[in-house]
This record gives sequence, C-alpha cells and structure tokens, in this order.
Amino acid sequence: MSNPEVEPVILTGQSRTHLENLEPLSRKVFLPLSGPTPRDNRAIADRIRQALAPDYGRVAFPLSLMAELPGLWLLNNARGPLTVTLAETENSWRIMDIEAGDTRRNHLGLAIDIGTTTVVVYLVDLASGEILRHAPDYNGQVPLGEDILSRIRSAAEAEGLENLRQAVLGTLNRLIRRLSPAPGDTRAISAIAIGANTTMVHLLLGLNPASIAKVPYTPVVNNPGILTAAEIGLEVHPLAPVYCLPSVGSFLGGDVVAGILVSGLHRQTEVSLFVDIGTNGEIVLGCADWLAACAGAAGPALEGGVTTFGMRAEPGAIDRVSILPGGSPQVEFSTIGNIPARGICGSGLVDTLAELFLHGLVDRRAHLLNGQEQFLLVPRAETDPALDRDIAVSQADIDNLMATKGAVNAAIDLLLENVGCSWQEIHHFYAAGAFGQYLPVESAIAIGLYPDLPRAAIIRLGNSSGEGARQALLSRAKRLEAEAICSKLTYFELNAEPAFMDKFRSSKFLPHTDLARYPSVEKRLADQKSSEL
Amino acid sequence: MSNPEVEPVILTGQSRTHLENLEPLSRKVFLPLSGPTPRDNRAIADRIRQALAPDYGRVAFPLSLMAELPGLWLLNNARGPLTVTLAETENSWRIMDIEAGDTRRNHLGLAIDIGTTTVVVYLVDLASGEILRHAPDYNGQVPLGEDILSRIRSAAEAEGLENLRQAVLGTLNRLIRRLSPAPGDTRAISAIAIGANTTMVHLLLGLNPASIAKVPYTPVVNNPGILTAAEIGLEVHPLAPVYCLPSVGSFLGGDVVAGILVSGLHRQTEVSLFVDIGTNGEIVLGCADWLAACAGAAGPALEGGVTTFGMRAEPGAIDRVSILPGGSPQVEFSTIGNIPARGICGSGLVDTLAELFLHGLVDRRAHLLNGQEQFLLVPRAETDPALDRDIAVSQADIDNLMATKGAVNAAIDLLLENVGCSWQEIHHFYAAGAFGQYLPVESAIAIGLYPDLPRAAIIRLGNSSGEGARQALLSRAKRLEAEAICSKLTYFELNAEPAFMDKFRSSKFLPHTDLARYPSVEKRLADQKSSEL
Repeated sequence: MSNPEVEPVILTGQSRTHLENLEPLSRKVFLPLSGPTPRDNRAIADRIRQALAPDYGRVAFPLSLMAELPGLWLLNNARGPLTVTLAETENSWRIMDIEAGDTRRNHLGLAIDIGTTTVVVYLVDLASGEILRHAPDYNGQVPLGEDILSRIRSAAEAEGLENLRQAVLGTLNRLIRRLSPAPGDTRAISAIAIGANTTMVHLLLGLNPASIAKVPYTPVVNNPGILTAAEIGLEVHPLAPVYCLPSVGSFLGGDVVAGILVSGLHRQTEVSLFVDIGTNGEIVLGCADWLAACAGAAGPALEGGVTTFGMRAEPGAIDRVSILPGGSPQVEFSTIGNIPARGICGSGLVDTLAELFLHGLVDRRAHLLNGQEQFLLVPRAETDPALDRDIAVSQADIDNLMATKGAVNAAIDLLLENVGCSWQEIHHFYAAGAFGQYLPVESAIAIGLYPDLPRAAIIRLGNSSGEGARQALLSRAKRLEAEAICSKLTYFELNAEPAFMDKFRSSKFLPHTDLARYPSVEKRLADQKSSEL
Repeated sequence: MSNPEVEPVILTGQSRTHLENLEPLSRKVFLPLSGPTPRDNRAIADRIRQALAPDYGRVAFPLSLMAELPGLWLLNNARGPLTVTLAETENSWRIMDIEAGDTRRNHLGLAIDIGTTTVVVYLVDLASGEILRHAPDYNGQVPLGEDILSRIRSAAEAEGLENLRQAVLGTLNRLIRRLSPAPGDTRAISAIAIGANTTMVHLLLGLNPASIAKVPYTPVVNNPGILTAAEIGLEVHPLAPVYCLPSVGSFLGGDVVAGILVSGLHRQTEVSLFVDIGTNGEIVLGCADWLAACAGAAGPALEGGVTTFGMRAEPGAIDRVSILPGGSPQVEFSTIGNIPARGICGSGLVDTLAELFLHGLVDRRAHLLNGQEQFLLVPRAETDPALDRDIAVSQADIDNLMATKGAVNAAIDLLLENVGCSWQEIHHFYAAGAFGQYLPVESAIAIGLYPDLPRAAIIRLGNSSGEGARQALLSRAKRLEAEAICSKLTYFELNAEPAFMDKFRSSKFLPHTDLARYPSVEKRLADQKSSEL
C-alpha cells in the first residue's frame, strides 16, 4: 500500500535514444500571413487551410477555433503572422490551436508510463525531444486492488470501473499540474504518449476489462489509435492527441511493446532476449525476422509483496547484502536512505540468496543447511525501533524467490524450444524496468535470474515503458515501428503447454539445472571453495 | 414578417437529378463478425478497424463507442454481425455508430436550404437517395432583421450573434423533430448537407459576420469543411458530419454554388446564364471552361417588400393578372388559396406590368399613360373585408419593379462585356428559386426580366439550394464538383464599375433598351396592335 509519508523510489531513469527526425504527435506551423487586401480577400479560415495543404493535406478545422479568428486576426488591427498547432489524427491532421506570432519554441508534450503500481510522467520539449522534468507517484488505483486481477475484479463492482478510472486520472492530473510550465497552464501541453499494460490502458480509458481475464482473453482494444485528451479526461489541451502504445493481447501490453522498441532487438540480425519481471513477467525472444513472447504472473518475491519482511524499495529497505562466511556468518548490508532497516526489498533478497549460495549456506536446491528455517540478517537492536523484531530471510521467502526464478527459467527454455533456438544463440539480454535497473547483476546471475552472458551483453533499459512512450510521442516512424512489432509478435500461451510445469519443477536449481550454462558462477563457486580451504 | 396564422408558401419542389453512384457523407457497413475464439482472440475494436481498413483506411474510433463494445458484443452472449456507421471527415473516416445486426436500410440524412427568409429541411433516405419527407418554415431570424445587412448589424449587438444562431437553430431543430422517423429519434439521422448564403452559414455556425460587410469583404470562412452536428448544435446524431456547400465570397454563397451545381452549366460547352433574384440577386454566366458572376441587392419588388399592397406569396396574394383592354380595362386575377384578395405578390406584379405594357397602358419607360398615379386591380368591395381599401398598383410600385429589372439587365450586360461574350451565345437560362418557379414566363419575358430565348431553353430549377444540398449529401463527387466551381468562379464587383450605373439607367426600358433582343415580345406587341385595330 502506498504510504504518503514515505517518498517512493520509482524508476524514472531511462536508456535514451537520440531521434534523428522529430515528427511529434502535434506540430507547430508558422504562417507568415498578411492582409487581407481587396486583391486577396479569401476567407481567413480558407487561407490558413490552403497554407497548410501542401504539407498536411486537408486538415480538419474545429468550429470553436474558427470562431476565434475574427477576434484573433480578422477584426484585429494588429494582424500579423500566426502559429497553428496541428494534432495528428488517423491518416490526417486537425487544427488544435491558433496563436498570434511565432510560438514554435513553446511546444510541449508528455510521455507517460502507467504501471500497475507506479506512474511516471515526463514533460518533453517537442521542439528538441529532450525531457525537461518528470514526476513519479504510486498509481492511485493501488488501494482498489494490488495487482491486475484484483483490479479487474474491482472493475466488475458497481461504480468500480469509474472509480478505477478516476483514481488513475487523479494521479496523472496531479502529476501533470506539478509539471505544467506555468501554474495552471496545462493547456500548453499539446500531445501525450502512454506506455502501459493492457489492463491499465482499459482502466484509464474506462473500458470494461472483464474479457481480458476470461477465455479466450480478448481485450476490448489493443491499439486505441489516436484519441483526444478530452475524451480521456487528461487535463492538458482538450484536443491534444493521445497515443497509447499498442498491446499484443491481454497479457502483452504497450509497456512491453515499448520495451522492445527501446531495446531495438526487433531490428537486429542476432537473436536477443528481453525480460521484464514485476508483479507479472514478460519474456520476448527474437530478432529482425521474428518475435516470440510469453507472459505470466511472476509471483511477488521481487516486489516485496509476501516475504516475511518484504517491502517495496522505500527508505529503510535493505537493498544490498554481503555475507562474510565463518562459524557465525557476518552480514553487511545497506538500506535505501541509509536509515535503520525496516525490511528487505527485491534486490536485497536476490543479494542474500546469491551470497548464501556462493558461501555454501544453501544447497543447489536453495535449502538452508541443516534444515534451518531462517537466516538472520539484522538483529532487532539494529533495526528501526518501530519494527521491534529481528529481520531474517526465511526458507519460505527463499522458496518464493526460487519459484519466480524457476518460472523465468522455464519460460525462457520453453520459448527457445518453441522457436527452435538454442541458449548459445542469445546475443543480448535486455533487462527492463526495476528488474533491470536495481538488481545486482552478479547476484542475479549467481541465482540464475539473469543469463550468464558477457557482462557487456547485459543491458539495463531503465524505465523502457516511459522511454518507449517518449519515442512514440516524438516520432511517427517509432509509432509505426511499435505497430509493426505487434503484428510480428507471436504469443505463446504457456499455461496451455503441459511441458511448462515439468520445466518449472526442474528449474528450481541454483543457478540452473544445467550448470554448464553458468560458467562464471561455476568459477566463482570454485574460487570460493578454494579460498575457504 | 412571419405570421403564424398563415401557412407560408415556401418553394420546396426541385428539379431532381438522379445520381448514379451514391457516396453519402455517412456510410453504413455490414460486418459479419463471429467469435472471438482461442484461435482469433484479437481485440474487438481492432477487429472492427481491420475489417474496415481495405475500403476506408485507418478510421478514427471515438472512445465513447469503444466503451460500448463489451455490452454490445464482447460480453454479450448473442454475439453476431454488426453494422458500423462511418462519418466522412477531412481525408478520412470516423466511426460514429455501431449497431447489432444489419441496419443498412435504416440510413437517413438531411438536405437543408437556409434562406434569409425561408428554411426547408428534406429528410433523405441515404440508401436510395430519395427524399422521404420535407418541412418548410420561415427563418426564425426574420424578427431580428429582415435582410442580410440588418442581420449583420444585429449580430454586432450584445448577445446578437448568439441570439441569431439560436434563432435559426430553433427553426432547424423544430423542423428536424417534425421529420424524425420516430418521435424523438433524431439520432437516427447521420449526415447533413446545407445550402445557404455566406451570412446564413456564419450565423448558423456562430461566426462573427462583421467582416463580410466591410472592405475588403473577407468572410471568416468560405469552405467550413466537414463539421459535426454537436459542434453546431443540430439535434441529430452528435457525430453526424455536416457539410455546408462552400461559398465563393461574401456575396456569392453556397446557395448559388448549389444552384450552379444543379444546373450543370459548369459542365456544358455552350455558355449559359444562371439567375436567382430574391432580396439579393446573383447572376452567373459561364460554361465548362470559365465561370463569371456578380451579385447585389435586387430591391424588394419581387419579394412583396415595399410596394403599396405588396405581400409575400401567402394566401390572399394576387399571383396572376390578366387585363382585358377597352375603354375601362377589365382585370381578371387569381389569388393564392382562392380567397378574397389581400395584396399582391411578386408574380402578380410582374403579370400586371406585362399586361399593362402589352395593352399599351404604360409606355416603354413603364410610365402609366396620361400621368395616372395608379392602376386599379381590385375594388374595395371585392377585397378581403379586413383590408377595407381598393387594391391598386401605383407608379411607385412599377418604378420599384423596373429598378429590379434594370439592375438585372445591367448586370447581365456588364458580365457579358467583361467576359467578351454576346447575348446570342447564351444557350440556356436557368432561373433559380421562387424567381424561377413562380414568375409567369411570358410576362417575365415581356417585361425583360427573363431573356427572350426559345421556351425550352428556359429552365426552372426550383429550390436549387436544397437540391444542391441533397446532391452534396449523397455524392462525394458532387461535393468536389462544388469546390471546383468555387475555385473556377471569377467574381465581378459591379459597384466598382462606373459603367454599371450608366447601364442601369439605360436599362429601364420595356422589355429592354434593345428591342431586337426580344423578338417574341415585339411580335406580341404587333399582334396586340393589329387585334385592337
């Protein structure tokens, strides 16, 4: 649950791509108009449309803007050049604003990442493509349901869908006001792109998500096309075009498509792997010729959900652990914010298991030695006084993490088998989101959550959903690329494959059933042993 | 002034063209959807868009309609085919309605003629192109200003523009409700096309018309493109596309462009003349290669405006007159509705002057013989008792009619001179509106208001503004044709030509300064003389 007293640690950083040609969702066009004169007394609206025609074809002209022309220009003695803002629509353009003078440098848009748990809004300068500011927060829907399935259930209650819609709109509009260039001037923002999973898109748009969770898992919409801010309720310019990155289906959303887009794996000749593990996990394998994906619940181990002392990555969470082995092993750790420990978050748990494994304190099946039930991390005296308990990692906590890891291993193996590709062919490993950003690489490899590739081939994408949204906001080519990714992608329904459970069961070894796939871990284990001799 | 107790006689009949290919502003498309199935679980909105793509490209999908899909289809056990209504937009299409089953036969639109004085709404079956019903009324703006200039003045007052807009909207929405297929079901109407003059379009759209009447006579808009009913306030389907036939400028509106479109003169190799005379007069000369036009105030003589007993074409108006010459000439007449006479309307006045001229009761300058001040038509005893006076035509009434006739003659002559064309080259004479429909042809020729062409070359177009709107409603080709007419048409500003006043002064002869142009009238005069000898 979100706690307003605690500053969230929300992933906002991104691996950013420089875009060569900016083709944002909204455009500003300078029109050096003069007149009218007896020789050129064309109607002013027609003159504007004719001036735009060579580059933009027949543009739509909303009546409310036509009605402003007499005051703005025709009956105004200070007639001069105008700047017209155009909104992209399906196959065409709509005039969305007309201002006196040259206002091309004042051109703003938003890239938005809506996660099930967290939301980040980026204010983007559409003239330069740069991010000016950003603002993160928890998704206001969290109190109405922690995960996607509970949100879908909640949407089925009376007023449930509308409450969920208003909750996320409330979060977004609060962040937008915080980012707005001048207090209250959210109207200056003229375009929005959004990366979010299929359910988050449905709830934002007020679309009943019931069919997402029912056989045959058919969403209302995968590609909503270009909508307007007014239709959705986003408090920017009401005619601002809003583009949601398209989904592939119920379980592969625009956030994943954004991640593929940012990784660029869909344009490479070699096969690469894209993995994002949060409450849900999505795995994409592919190259320029083909894309295959699967998805499923990943378990809450990495999200701090159900482990005994699990917590989100908030101040007081243990995020790094190292163990000095010996008769009574010594634990070194750090916490977020360097304050007394209150619990342990995903990265701390991964570090703990890796250290336990490397120092022989758990076996390859991740069982604590001698049937111990827990491993003490921080004695009560050193914890946050409010906690008033020891902080330990229990065998149940470890089992949860192993289930997540096992599911990831099984899914990757099954995808490889389905497309007839071997582990050795994987060229890059793209780790998205918090899963990519905060996990300690060596520990993640040690427990087999990341593959044991040359370290330069392991690429953290950061908030790729937000960066994909920024690219879609700024580039028509990238929007088309996102749609091409969707049509190329084959989704494998793992639950439908009996082989999945077999693989899952046999994947619960550290780092992997097949140790030969983890040569660097094998070497560390050997080094460790020799140093302890 | 409109009188609610009197049924107006409003021209609603038209010379109708059969359109080969119906391409209405809104389309109904039948989609034989089934599923979804595990093999085809594409999102329903995407399936609809994909099904439309081959014929309609990327269509816009309003969020409000996407939100209806779960209830209409996705979560409905009676899933079956759907009918999608598409609205044409600039260069593209927008989904405006989705209905269960096949509703293609229930497809309605409106063709609307908005005159300064009268309004006619036609309910059109968009599947067949036929007019199902129509409803006429006076324009609700009349009490706020009789003619165009007084409306423009009235629009400049506080709330003036909004009052004028509401007045015409009130008239239109009342007529629309009267025509609606089921009581209150105006939503079934999915497209509208409008023929109206430039000022009427501005007032309907709420656009400040001030610049129309000020040098350099620049309207806010000539071609508003495709708007929506909701933007304008027309109470049909809110997303219904509304197309106003484009204007050429302040003085040549979409009503005249509609008239040219209906006449077809812009597609003929021979030169023809199009004339519409109401409160204002518009004259168009041209052929497939060129179009020239002029316009101006025509004087109110034909509208029953200021002549002593002048009245609109309402019951009790004298509409036909013949005179049996003799020592005391006998007058035969008919009235509209065959009730006692209350006054005289335009056609009665034209008949009277023609008869007076043919029987030598006025001279060629249209002066009553012997300086008489008036000519008695109906003695008090035979008139409507409420009138309690003789009905007569005064010399001043005749002078007013001669001014109108003279202005028409002068304008035609000047247009011919400007384009270097002779009278003999005129192939057809298209007479639009009430001017074409109700005037007695022989009398109109006798006084020189119509040219003396072979009678088969004189073509009455009826309500060509309404018929042009019907064609624009039903045919994309006709809409493009209307726009091509606008770009081809050269407007001549007669007030700017000193020659106009000269021609005007010398045009006040019956039937024309140059009697040789009126051979049939010359013959009637000769016949008349010989019979009276």
